[in-house]
Amino acid sequence: MNDTVMIIAESNAAPGKADQVRSLIESVVERTRAEDGCLRYEVLRDLDDDSHIILIEEWRDQASLDAHLASEHLTTMFQTMMPLLAGEGRGTRVARIA
Amino acid sequence: MNDTVMIIAESNAAPGKADQVRSLIESVVERTRAEDGCLRYEVLRDLDDDSHIILIEEWRDQASLDAHLASEHLTTMFQTMMPLLAGEGRGTRVARIA
Repeated sequence: MNDTVMIIAESNAAPGKADQVRSLIESVVERTRAEDGCLRYEVLRDLDDDSHIILIEEWRDQASLDAHLASEHLTTMFQTMMPLLAGEGRGTRVARIA
Repeated sequence: MNDTVMIIAESNAAPGKADQVRSLIESVVERTRAEDGCLRYEVLRDLDDDSHIILIEEWRDQASLDAHLASEHLTTMFQTMMPLLAGEGRGTRVARIA
């Protein structure tokens, strides 16, 4: 029943880079949501920490997430974004229990 | 346009208490979703850390969240749950940007 793949992916922008990081993520939202198997792609900001950006992603299965991670638009965006981040980011694999 | 109140609320169960904590939270899900102004109340588990429970909540406005936090079912559940938690938990106020 609950075979989707859900991830909460968090990044912190380096000082002064939050706007750029948000723009980069926003630039791939439409293409990501159009990908096969993308059930949800929410982009959130932390109202108490401007540098903190949170994605809530849900994919039909691991294969569709893998295809997303290998997609041209994501890998290209990532190369630009990586130097603008502070630290490694954090991905939490979650499952709905209620 | 985006005047809802969104919270990501995270708790960690004390060792051996994760099942009890999840059951307690699950016991209020139905009543919470029936509350006026509750737009979303998702209960998630961290697949890599069994003690880690994550709620994604969205409320119509601060007043409806405040009413929820003061509700009998939540405050009663909280009193039972508090001793089963490790640490304080963490609430992140977020806003949708895309």
